[in-house]
Amino acid sequence: MRDGQRLEEFYRDRRVLVTGGLGFIGSNLVRRLVGLGSRVTVIDACFPDQGANLYNLEGVLEEITLVVSDIGATRTVIEHLPEQEVVFNLAACVSHVGSLHHPLRDLKRNCVSQLRFLCALAELNPGVSVIYTGSRSQYGSPLYLPMDEDHPLRPVDINGVHKTAVEEYHRILHEQGRIRYLSLRLTNIFGPRHQMMHDGQGFLNWFIRLGLQGKEIRVFGDGTQARDFLYVEDAVEVLLLAAADAECRGMSLNLASGKSITVAEAAQAVSEEAGTEWTLVPYPPERASVEPGDVVLDISRLRAALDWEPRWDFRAGLQETIAFYRMHGEHYFRPSETKPSLIRKRPI
Amino acid sequence: MRDGQRLEEFYRDRRVLVTGGLGFIGSNLVRRLVGLGSRVTVIDACFPDQGANLYNLEGVLEEITLVVSDIGATRTVIEHLPEQEVVFNLAACVSHVGSLHHPLRDLKRNCVSQLRFLCALAELNPGVSVIYTGSRSQYGSPLYLPMDEDHPLRPVDINGVHKTAVEEYHRILHEQGRIRYLSLRLTNIFGPRHQMMHDGQGFLNWFIRLGLQGKEIRVFGDGTQARDFLYVEDAVEVLLLAAADAECRGMSLNLASGKSITVAEAAQAVSEEAGTEWTLVPYPPERASVEPGDVVLDISRLRAALDWEPRWDFRAGLQETIAFYRMHGEHYFRPSETKPSLIRKRPI
Repeated sequence: MRDGQRLEEFYRDRRVLVTGGLGFIGSNLVRRLVGLGSRVTVIDACFPDQGANLYNLEGVLEEITLVVSDIGATRTVIEHLPEQEVVFNLAACVSHVGSLHHPLRDLKRNCVSQLRFLCALAELNPGVSVIYTGSRSQYGSPLYLPMDEDHPLRPVDINGVHKTAVEEYHRILHEQGRIRYLSLRLTNIFGPRHQMMHDGQGFLNWFIRLGLQGKEIRVFGDGTQARDFLYVEDAVEVLLLAAADAECRGMSLNLASGKSITVAEAAQAVSEEAGTEWTLVPYPPERASVEPGDVVLDISRLRAALDWEPRWDFRAGLQETIAFYRMHGEHYFRPSETKPSLIRKRPI
Repeated sequence: MRDGQRLEEFYRDRRVLVTGGLGFIGSNLVRRLVGLGSRVTVIDACFPDQGANLYNLEGVLEEITLVVSDIGATRTVIEHLPEQEVVFNLAACVSHVGSLHHPLRDLKRNCVSQLRFLCALAELNPGVSVIYTGSRSQYGSPLYLPMDEDHPLRPVDINGVHKTAVEEYHRILHEQGRIRYLSLRLTNIFGPRHQMMHDGQGFLNWFIRLGLQGKEIRVFGDGTQARDFLYVEDAVEVLLLAAADAECRGMSLNLASGKSITVAEAAQAVSEEAGTEWTLVPYPPERASVEPGDVVLDISRLRAALDWEPRWDFRAGLQETIAFYRMHGEHYFRPSETKPSLIRKRPI
């Protein structure tokens, strides 16, 4: 309640920009922001296969301004940068295997676009608060567990290199006094509105798809790989709390549950909830090359900074997620028409 | 002698590619390689103001193949990538203040070009040895001194972010088995063949120019900032030894003297050698923003890996450098014509 009131007071009528707002986490955030009464602008490039889905904002599209554009297309986006009071900078191309095959595309879509965007933002809206979503993939294979924020950054793929470079752009612009940044390094986030077209981004939602389609879930390796799952509503809560706390800047903090679940346990849980089977299969070589090993994050600093605890346990989040896709799966299992003909919708 | 014989045996008739070979360190390296009997190809973009200077290879141009091209211009460079046995990957745009004003140019010339180059190299010449020159600027402001290779990478400017990203490209391609890399993180290297047109790259050579022109040397701040200087001949020796040692791969190692000299002491030494005066002046704000504080590097790991010690002390290197510029300064004090009309020279 206390948090809820604080958030309502902070976000009502506030101008908020969400990059990547048609995607998984972005759209869950936008829906909360609309509920809190914010004046939301979304910029989303709608790159194919990346998770942007107009259906994610079904029912709230009329309440926001939607700009379909690469954030690096400065001529298009600059008019939307001044006067924003908070920027949630979630736009990213996320694909670990993809960055092996298309490293230059990963560089252009992540570093080039983000650097263009951030320079324009710092110029047109100096001192604005920017909440960036980094990734646990920045750490690479753990040297110790749980991994705190001082763990060396040695990602296993090019996408992880670029996530760090973009985080560093934020830090340097912050230290130059041009923006005020916070990076939240995200663990495996799961929940409604994640794309379900392919298995290139997060395996849990892929397991759920297989479960709902009555297909056998295939777990790579021996299934003992540990992951740290966080339900998307918890992640959104942290994004909102962090942006509302002006003191919470100039840092990179882990955003996770701090708890470990093995991939086999996750497969077992999905099987139980969806009523299907799972099995172990050998790692495909490409997957093995981007497998970081066990991952659990230390969230002490986030707890201390925001006085926050996760509210959702894994099973409860999983049940919500499965219920969502039972109802709305048709909008997620196939490639959706993401490039809307309407370029912008102005709020009424 | 022992080292000298080992190097002669290794480098004689060996095909060696040097990117950035018209620049300061690159050209000193190329001259040694030609002396050792290697078959050298140089690729250099000749970006203005970056230090490429045809005069740097005066007298050895006929002995090498020179390709004037951005290393990222794949269609031009690919024919020179197969059959190389060693690649010294020195090409970079180095400007800390410059990257504040032109961060996107820094991104394109460093990350985009390097990623294109490395992907083409790994494709056309799988498993090749690549010696990359990183920088102490990757560390940023020291959390402790001397800084070892585990020191966090928190550069103070965008150029430092990109130096690390490019080092990471090498590491990841190495871990994928596509190249074999070693990164040498360079301290303040000084010596003959450094550009003297402007003060945007290294202050010691700028001090020398002022000294030789009878002008007063201006030291920013109180002059107590520590730096770790290494004479270029020592740096070249390490590059040669490291490439010749096939075991020395898959690491990033500091390349420095491990000794600390203050900027005031350096100014005093130049004044004594060149017969001029020096004074303290306040930091210009832009310079202050990219000043890392005291820098001294720990070179224990390099010593252990290569059984190497610096041979040149600071004063001896300084005297050689001043003697060189007394003789050849006219080719370095003004912008030189770096874009040669001859695109390639084939070795005879």
